[in-house]
Amino acid sequence: MTVFLVGAGPGDADLLTVRAARLLAQADVVVHDRLITKEVLDLVAPGAEQIDVGKHPGFSDTQESINDLLVALGRRHGCVVRLKGGDPFVFGRGGEEAQAVAGSGIDVEVIAGVTSAFAGPLLAGIPVTHRGLSHGVTVVTGSAVSGATVDFRRLANPDLTLVVLMGVRRRRTIARELVEGGLDPTTPVAVVERASTDQQRVLRCTLAQLGEMNVSSPAVLVIGAVAALDLGRVGALAASYAMST
Amino acid sequence: MTVFLVGAGPGDADLLTVRAARLLAQADVVVHDRLITKEVLDLVAPGAEQIDVGKHPGFSDTQESINDLLVALGRRHGCVVRLKGGDPFVFGRGGEEAQAVAGSGIDVEVIAGVTSAFAGPLLAGIPVTHRGLSHGVTVVTGSAVSGATVDFRRLANPDLTLVVLMGVRRRRTIARELVEGGLDPTTPVAVVERASTDQQRVLRCTLAQLGEMNVSSPAVLVIGAVAALDLGRVGALAASYAMST
Repeated sequence: MTVFLVGAGPGDADLLTVRAARLLAQADVVVHDRLITKEVLDLVAPGAEQIDVGKHPGFSDTQESINDLLVALGRRHGCVVRLKGGDPFVFGRGGEEAQAVAGSGIDVEVIAGVTSAFAGPLLAGIPVTHRGLSHGVTVVTGSAVSGATVDFRRLANPDLTLVVLMGVRRRRTIARELVEGGLDPTTPVAVVERASTDQQRVLRCTLAQLGEMNVSSPAVLVIGAVAALDLGRVGALAASYAMST
Repeated sequence: MTVFLVGAGPGDADLLTVRAARLLAQADVVVHDRLITKEVLDLVAPGAEQIDVGKHPGFSDTQESINDLLVALGRRHGCVVRLKGGDPFVFGRGGEEAQAVAGSGIDVEVIAGVTSAFAGPLLAGIPVTHRGLSHGVTVVTGSAVSGATVDFRRLANPDLTLVVLMGVRRRRTIARELVEGGLDPTTPVAVVERASTDQQRVLRCTLAQLGEMNVSSPAVLVIGAVAALDLGRVGALAASYAMST
């Protein structure tokens, strides 16, 4: 009776942790989000049940239903894996799921994963910190959290890299607020679509151009001086590596 | 002739990526930092050379010497692994190493890792984002970068979690500047020492108390409302899990 909240990383099965790969092979049931890739789900043991809570009728959109499902499964099975994109404790409401399960007296263990917030830029050849360009990094989501959206004016800091997850739809507002907050309109931006998958695509522009870019979800926005970097053959190799897996 | 810049994660060998574990077994030579754990280095193939650039005479402290060493090894060997704690592109100057190696015409591939910036909090039962408590997270280093230190007054934002790496020595200054910037002195703080190792220890206090805490490096400082969380049995289980590996 343990529910494992497991980070699936950005999509490439080679970027699962050793522990995550082992748990997928051992699980009685795997509850996963819509964006978990096929190559990751291919590691689940053949006899195990797979439940897609991004599509399952009645479970889409309601976090409470997912919490209840995890509790019910935790009571029935020895090893339940709740597989979440990236890291379970970086957005994605993993904390709420852990609280719900533990609150029902079921053991919870959380397994860190490679966060898409940093792997996305990396796979485009971009380090989120780099000497002389960025002292640190802020990660936020561009979509509403509990009804409220982030005020990007407060996040305009030329010394830090800004990574925005789920920011495609609101990219025009994000860019405008950052400029209102004092960020230079010529600040470099990189958009990394479907990082680590064979459909990965990297677009580069400036903050002023971001609103006009033709971008599709899921994508990571990288905003700041480092977004102009493409470190030697790092990006190209990383992309070709992703293509080959 | 490829130099792989590989993230080693926070220390626990189970938190290596599948790809990192495979590369360690294949490497001709592994160049690593001082803080890479024994259990990770145990995965290196028996015949492979291991070079500790945190201790090796002539290589400690000079990034250029490390860059030159990687270039020299890249010319001699088919598979050189440069193993860095956490993620290679989150602090740790991985970007500079990639530039140096690629600039010498040697292939570079960068493998993302689980960053200690998020795994440290997770292993203490703390999600860096949580509905109603934190909209996002900022990661900075507390030590000087290119001679300059971060102005923490600018990072005082009650809506975001602040994670400080290498901040133990300057914790008094960090706390003072955050309060000067407007952060409440009662803001919760968690200090996670040696995350994911069998010496992991978690201390909790307020921002006002941080300067007086008896803390030792390496440690991750987590500052913000989420730092008061210890999600059910998550933290305890995660700790016991780390103890058992």
